[in-house]
Formats: sequence, C-alpha cells, structure tokens
Amino acid sequence: MSNDVKKVLINGQWTSGHFSSTFQSTNPNLGVANSAKFPISEWVDCESILSAAEAAFLECRSLPSERFADFLEHYANAIEADKDTLVELAHSESGLPKSPRLADVELPRTLSQLRQAAASARDQSWRMATVDSKAKLRSCYQAIGPVCVFGPNNFPFAFNSIAGGDFASAIAAGNPVIAKANSSHPETSERFGLLASQSIAATSMPTGLAQLIYRTSHEDGERLIADPRLAAAGYTGARSAGLKLKAVADRVGKPFYAELSSVNPVVFMPGALQERLEALVDEYVTSGLMAAGQFCTNPGMLLLVDNAESKKFLEMVVAKYAASTPGTLLSPSVERTLLASIQVLTDAGAKLLVGGSKFEGVRCAVSNTVMQISGDQFAKDPHVFQTEAFGNAVLVILCKDLEQIRSIIRSLEGNLTGSIYSSTKGDDDASYLAIADALAQRVGRLLNDKMPTGVAVSSAMNHGGPYPATSHPGFTAVGFPASMLRFAKLTCFDNVREERLPSVLQHNPPSDKTWRMIDGTWIKG
Amino acid sequence: MSNDVKKVLINGQWTSGHFSSTFQSTNPNLGVANSAKFPISEWVDCESILSAAEAAFLECRSLPSERFADFLEHYANAIEADKDTLVELAHSESGLPKSPRLADVELPRTLSQLRQAAASARDQSWRMATVDSKAKLRSCYQAIGPVCVFGPNNFPFAFNSIAGGDFASAIAAGNPVIAKANSSHPETSERFGLLASQSIAATSMPTGLAQLIYRTSHEDGERLIADPRLAAAGYTGARSAGLKLKAVADRVGKPFYAELSSVNPVVFMPGALQERLEALVDEYVTSGLMAAGQFCTNPGMLLLVDNAESKKFLEMVVAKYAASTPGTLLSPSVERTLLASIQVLTDAGAKLLVGGSKFEGVRCAVSNTVMQISGDQFAKDPHVFQTEAFGNAVLVILCKDLEQIRSIIRSLEGNLTGSIYSSTKGDDDASYLAIADALAQRVGRLLNDKMPTGVAVSSAMNHGGPYPATSHPGFTAVGFPASMLRFAKLTCFDNVREERLPSVLQHNPPSDKTWRMIDGTWIKG
Repeated sequence: MSNDVKKVLINGQWTSGHFSSTFQSTNPNLGVANSAKFPISEWVDCESILSAAEAAFLECRSLPSERFADFLEHYANAIEADKDTLVELAHSESGLPKSPRLADVELPRTLSQLRQAAASARDQSWRMATVDSKAKLRSCYQAIGPVCVFGPNNFPFAFNSIAGGDFASAIAAGNPVIAKANSSHPETSERFGLLASQSIAATSMPTGLAQLIYRTSHEDGERLIADPRLAAAGYTGARSAGLKLKAVADRVGKPFYAELSSVNPVVFMPGALQERLEALVDEYVTSGLMAAGQFCTNPGMLLLVDNAESKKFLEMVVAKYAASTPGTLLSPSVERTLLASIQVLTDAGAKLLVGGSKFEGVRCAVSNTVMQISGDQFAKDPHVFQTEAFGNAVLVILCKDLEQIRSIIRSLEGNLTGSIYSSTKGDDDASYLAIADALAQRVGRLLNDKMPTGVAVSSAMNHGGPYPATSHPGFTAVGFPASMLRFAKLTCFDNVREERLPSVLQHNPPSDKTWRMIDGTWIKG
Repeated sequence: MSNDVKKVLINGQWTSGHFSSTFQSTNPNLGVANSAKFPISEWVDCESILSAAEAAFLECRSLPSERFADFLEHYANAIEADKDTLVELAHSESGLPKSPRLADVELPRTLSQLRQAAASARDQSWRMATVDSKAKLRSCYQAIGPVCVFGPNNFPFAFNSIAGGDFASAIAAGNPVIAKANSSHPETSERFGLLASQSIAATSMPTGLAQLIYRTSHEDGERLIADPRLAAAGYTGARSAGLKLKAVADRVGKPFYAELSSVNPVVFMPGALQERLEALVDEYVTSGLMAAGQFCTNPGMLLLVDNAESKKFLEMVVAKYAASTPGTLLSPSVERTLLASIQVLTDAGAKLLVGGSKFEGVRCAVSNTVMQISGDQFAKDPHVFQTEAFGNAVLVILCKDLEQIRSIIRSLEGNLTGSIYSSTKGDDDASYLAIADALAQRVGRLLNDKMPTGVAVSSAMNHGGPYPATSHPGFTAVGFPASMLRFAKLTCFDNVREERLPSVLQHNPPSDKTWRMIDGTWIKG
C-alpha cells in the first residue's frame, strides 16, 4: 500500500512492513477521524519482531543494569523535551484535556514512572537477592524475556504500551518490550516510539529493546502471545479481548498480567452521611465525573443504607450530575459500550435517575448517568449488576441495613479498590470491621474516607486485585519496584562459584543502595 | 457402605460421608493391596468441606498469627511423638526405606518445615509490610482464603497434602486447607489427619482449618477447583491430571500452583570429565538411583560432548546401573508409567544401553535403565526426547560440541533444576557462561558441580521453574517464608485509620523479629 501509511518499528528500523489494511483513530471532540493511517500488521511482521526481541534479550542478559537505567532516563528526558507535541497528539486522539490532565498530571507522572524505574534498575533491590551462606544457596529475580505490552485507551501517556508503567517495569527488569499500541491513540504511540528508538540509539542499547506495532488480526495477536519467544505479557483493557489472550497464555503456561475491569465499590456508612453529607457529595461527584469517569478505579458502585440521609445524598448527586456538562469520552467505541452497559443495567431493573443517553452534538459523550437499585435487587442478580459501565455512570445500591451491604460485598467479584466512608467521631466503628474485612478480601486496595481515583506511584501502592480486576491477586501494576516482579523469574544459584554469580549475588553488592537479605537480615549496600 | 471403610475429616468430624465406591493402596514391596479401604467421596462431601472451609476462613481472619504458629508447633510435636507409626504406614504404602529415608530424612524435614512455617507465621516478615508514611499508603500480603492441596506420591511426609510444605505454607499464611490425599498413601494421610485434627482441638483453632478427603471423581475434583469458596490450590503430581485442574482454575482466574514435571538436565563439561571422571560417575549414579529416581529433581537428562571421556563415563554408568539392584517403585502405576515412558523414548530412537524392563519378582520395580541418543537426534525431535521417565531411568545425549549442548538447552521446556559440572582448574571457563546463561533461563535452580536431588528448606531455595516445571516462574514451593506468598493476596491500605490496620501495618510491629519496609528502609522490629 501507499507511502502515506505510518510505519512500524521493527528492530530499530521504521519500516512499512506488511499489511493489507489500515485504520485511523478518531478525534472524539470533533467526532471525525484523524488523518494519519496506521497499518494492521500481518504475521510476517510479528515474526520479525519476535526474532528481534529474542536477539535483543540475548544481548540484554550481558548488559549491566545501569545501562537499562541510562536508557530509561534518556528516554524520560526526550519525552520531557517533546512534551508539547505529545500533549497535542494525545489531546487530538483521546479528547482528554490538555490542562489539567495531559500536560500537568499525566505527563509528569509518566516521567516520574520512567525515572523511578531507572532508579530501581540501578539499585537492584527489586531482585530481592537472598543469600544462605551456610547452604551456599543464593536466589534472586532476574529478567524473564521479551514482554508484550497492550496498553489501554484511557491513559495515552502513563499506561502507553511504549512509555507507560508496564513498559518501564519490563525494561527496568532487563526485558525487551514488544509494544502493541492502543488503537485509539496510535499517533501518540508512534511519537513515543520515535523518542524511544532515538534513546535506544543514543544509549547504544540493543535495537530490538523496544518495538512497536499498532494492530494485528485477533488471530495474529493470539499467535504472538503463544509464541515461545515471548516470555510474558501485560494487558490493560477490555475484559472480553483480555480474556481471549489470557486463555492462550494460560494454555502455554505463560505469565499474563491482565487488568480487566472493576466497579470499585464505595460504602458510605450512615454516620459519615450524618456527619458530612455535602462534603461527601462533592467528593464523590468530583471523583465520579473526573475524566468522564474513564479510570480503572472510577467509583462505579455506591453502597448506602436506605435512610433519609442516603436519599438526600442521592438527590444531591443526581442534581449535580444533571447540572454538569458531561466530559468527552475517549472514542466512539467507549460511547457505544457505555450506552450498552447502561442498557444492560436498566434492562435488569436499575432505575435511571438521570442521564442514560447520548449527549447532544458531534463529540463522543453520554449524559452523566445515575442508576439506582435496592439491595434485594442486587442479591437476586449479582452478576448483571456488576456490569462495568466504563465512563460517567454510576450504580447506587440502597440497602436494607449494613448486614445487607456486607452480604453484597461478599458476593462481589474481585475489584481494584473498595472505599469505606465512616464517621470521624466513632459512630460507625462498631460495624466497620465486618464491612472492611469482607471488602479487603475482594479488592486490591482498601481506602478510608477517600475516593479511589488517585493512584500514587508508590512502593506501598497496590494497583491490582483479585480476578477479574486482574489475573493474579499477588501483583501490582503500579509502584516500583514491585511492579517489576511481574516481568521476572525467580532463580536460585546452588553452589555456584562466586565469580559466576550475577553481580547482585556476589560478595560485594552492585551499589551501596542495594537491599539484600543476607542470612536472615536485610542489609543495604 | 460398610463400617470397615475409612472416614473422611469434615469440619473437625471423622465421618463416613457419602461414597459409592472405595479404593485401596498397594504395598509396592509385596505387590499386594493394603487392607484399608478408602472412600471415593461424592460431591455432597465436597460441598460440606467447602462450606466448613469458608466458615473457618472467616474465623481465621480474626485470629492473631501466633495462633497459627501454635497450631503448627503442636502438630509438629504430635507428629514427632507418633513417628514410629507414621514411618510404618508410609513404608507399607510407598515402599520407601524406613532408614535411611522415612525415619531419619523425610520425617525430620517435615517437622522442620512445620516449625519453620510456625516461625514465619510468628514473625510476619513474610507479609512484606511496606509503608509510605507521606502518602499514607501501607501494603502487605494477607491470607487468600481456603486452599486445596493435592500432594504427590513420592513424598508421603514432606509433601503430604495435610502435613507437607504446601500445607504448612498455606496454614502459616492464615488459610484453611482442604487436603486431597494422594491415592497411593491414604493411610499415612489419615494418620496425619488424625494428628492434625487433635492439634486443632488442642489449640482451639477453627474446626475447618484442616480437612481431608482421599479421592473424588475427576468431575468433582474440577468442580472443587472451580468453586468460588476455594481461593487457590497447590498441586504436585502427574502432568496430565495437573493440567486439567489448571485449565479449570485458569478459566475462573484462580491461582493454581502446579508442579508438573522436570527432567533436570545435567551438563558434564569436558574439563570436568577429564579431571575427575570416576568421582563424577559415583556422584551421578548415587543421585540418579536414589529412591529409585523418584524425585521431582532427579537428574533424568545428561548432556555430554561426544568424546573418549564421555564414552568412558557412559560405560561406567551403565556398568554400575547393571550391577545395582533396582529400588522399589512407589506403586504399580509408577512402574507402568515408567515402562511406558521408556518405550516412548526407545520408539523415538533412543538406544537402550541397559535395563528397560520390569524387574523380576512381585515388587514394583524396573531394571535400572540408561538410554542414549545423539545431539542430532534430540534436535530433530526435542519434544519427544523431553518425555519425563519418572523413576530409575536416564537419557544421555552425546553432542557434537558445546555449541550443540547450548542449542539443545535453548530448546528445552522449563525445568526445576539444571546442573553444570566443570573443571575446577578453569579448563571449561571459556564456555561456561554461554551454557549457564541459557540454562538459567530454562530452570528455577542452577547448580554447579552438584546433583539436584538435595532440596534444602532454605529462604534462598527456589523449588520452582518455568512452565511446565511449574505453573508460574516467580514462586517457590520450598523455603520459608517465600513459599507462603503463593497462598496470599497483596492488599494496600490507603488512608486507613491506624487502629483499623492489620497489626503488621500499625506503628508498632507485632514482633521484634518482624521485617518491614518503612519509607524505603528495611527495619526489623
């Protein structure tokens, strides 16, 4: 096909590759296609990419960790210098506001992630080096091999498949990355790819360290996951597509870290509403409508005891939802899916209090939506009422009592987060523990008096949760160094001669910042 | 059915339960069935067990960790006091020698595991408590929920489903265990169950903390794994059965830690053979024939460069294999499977140098077996030549050169271990790295100048490895506290009030031995 189609990045080269069809992203604010055409790559390109990744991994294994840190830092600097262009592209492809959001929140976060990943690569504490001197046993985590990253639509920077958290984690652990761009922001991804390939060249890293394709057929996507040259994958996105890829990975016994869906239940205990109703309305509405609700951690299910304060709370939320102009959705597909999910919920008996329809005009938008059911309704059909309505829609469950709330929580699928608002004066303390204990089993992060939409990049963060929030309840996708462990294998060195050990297991540590567990004691440096 | 059928342990009660058929184990030394009859439980019993496990877990969550430690220690003491009976039973069901093995190796190891698990439960360092004070974020691992343990046939004590490593790990992390006894040693398991239930009562633990069934239909086994009340499972055993259960667990997104098969390649580099041929023959033969080769880490594949020393090595191994009386196999089924695997390998072209047939007499035994192929043969059919011949059989691969050995290693499936023997004088050093680098990617434990059959219970051990050795390359089944992380979920507490936090995340640690990562620094106590 013609020259006006964008190129893929294979083994350090931007090439037309092989494709027989193309796609375009949409500008969701204008409701029209962006002009750039991107190839839907054929298998032959995947084949080249896998070979290059395998060769790159062979090279990677002989490189000291600081080389990966150098690359990540160079890349972060390059992104920072290119900020204006990136913000412009991401805005045109995602509809997300330039400020406050892309330029002043998401881009700084992305830079911080890349730099934190570099620091973790440098100090190597992530390897959890463990030494039993007497038994001559030494173990540590090490790079696992080429990792494929599928990024989501809702964070064109911070979760971008060639610049975001999974990318940074995989590279910092010493693995090449095959980035599969999200189809809703290919041009943003291409720009990152350009900066990544320049940074690879500038820091003399293996040419196959970071490669980029935009889309393949579903069959080729599955074939890519199954290929023995690929060691692991990170996926953030729609549940249906994710589960298909997960099934392939499971069949061949390959780690596949998927973040699939979450409704993020929020419990407002009676004492909290009694104490600070208006503040809670404001706090909830701000979080619920932020970025048109397009966060993995968006509070999409509210649990309240059906009483006068709760009715008042609900009334005020509805009024604020009605009065706010809905934000732009990421794509026509997100709009379509949101409307369909609302339909599923209302068909099942949820009462539509406000919203529920396409918002007027050309841009992708749905009117801010509040739906209501009773606890009894939920109990009758817990499956359907956990349908994720990704976007600016919420399901409010008015329950008979706290025991019903607890019982509903116990029937929930896994979620990324769960929040509990309670009185600061102790009025809810008698019931807190039973609710919190049940909720903590169903979520990766339990919050008190706080909305779940802020995800700090901290070593103590867990952005994860039981299935189907994610595919494994023991790992986090956010926070260094823990997120790197997804892309690592544990290796024990038994009676291996000192000079043959990985540097992190030798007598002298690679850095004075390296934490190691030596004969039962954590020692730094 | 009649009273002479053994009882299952459901929620603290020994009950006849529901069954319509029974089975018996075999005394492999005598080649006859042991007299005790065990029920093949029906679903209704699984249902009761799941309910009891769920209830027990609810209780468990409010118990301090030292209570689990108390139970584990009480149980270890009870086992120690009952040693003679246990050894007698295990000998009659497994054919393993009482000494040296059951009484003086495996039983002490089992006690040590239970006591190490207790110590880990007590100090809580396993939770990896991580605090970010500034962000008010605190994370730790916590109990995951009821765990089903399927133990293997080859360690009636140390991997027993109601006394072994998985059991100890799951309990120490605060989870109830549903033990599915291995069908080859039900009476040994029943005896452990008796001691466990007595220890539960003596330490006032929840009655559903440890429950025991012996066998179910395959359908009910799968239904058990799929049930939402079950949180995770540990499986050690045959690959085919394990993969069926794994597929069920994968479909419902449940952690399933399976140890499936391993041939444990051993590379003898030319310099090592030149230097100490006879010592290596002795070392290999001792390890290869120990317990009739019935270890997960048995060295079942030897890789040598085809030269005069290797031929001599092989000749000597064959002579020793021919001269040694074969050990007793665990069961008629192991004998059958071993003979079938030898057949698969010889049908594919492996040359039988010695052995290969049923050993004379009534006991379960196969003559010590050595098979040989060339590196070229392996390269033509790497799949079939990785068939695990569990028992006293080995496949020797004579390769053209070290490059061919490296290339074969790169084509291997995941294994638990890989060993490299090399010259102590540096003669092999030029080639070591390329071989070791390839091998370390394919195994969980890399050894130097050492056979893989000893698995020390150490914090630095990794008894794990890439698929299909196990189902996840990031976890170990042996060694505390790491093995406990399989039966845990990561939970972050965000802005949660101090008094509501798990004790390990509160300001004062639960013990002066608790390691915690506080604001970037590992601190004890």
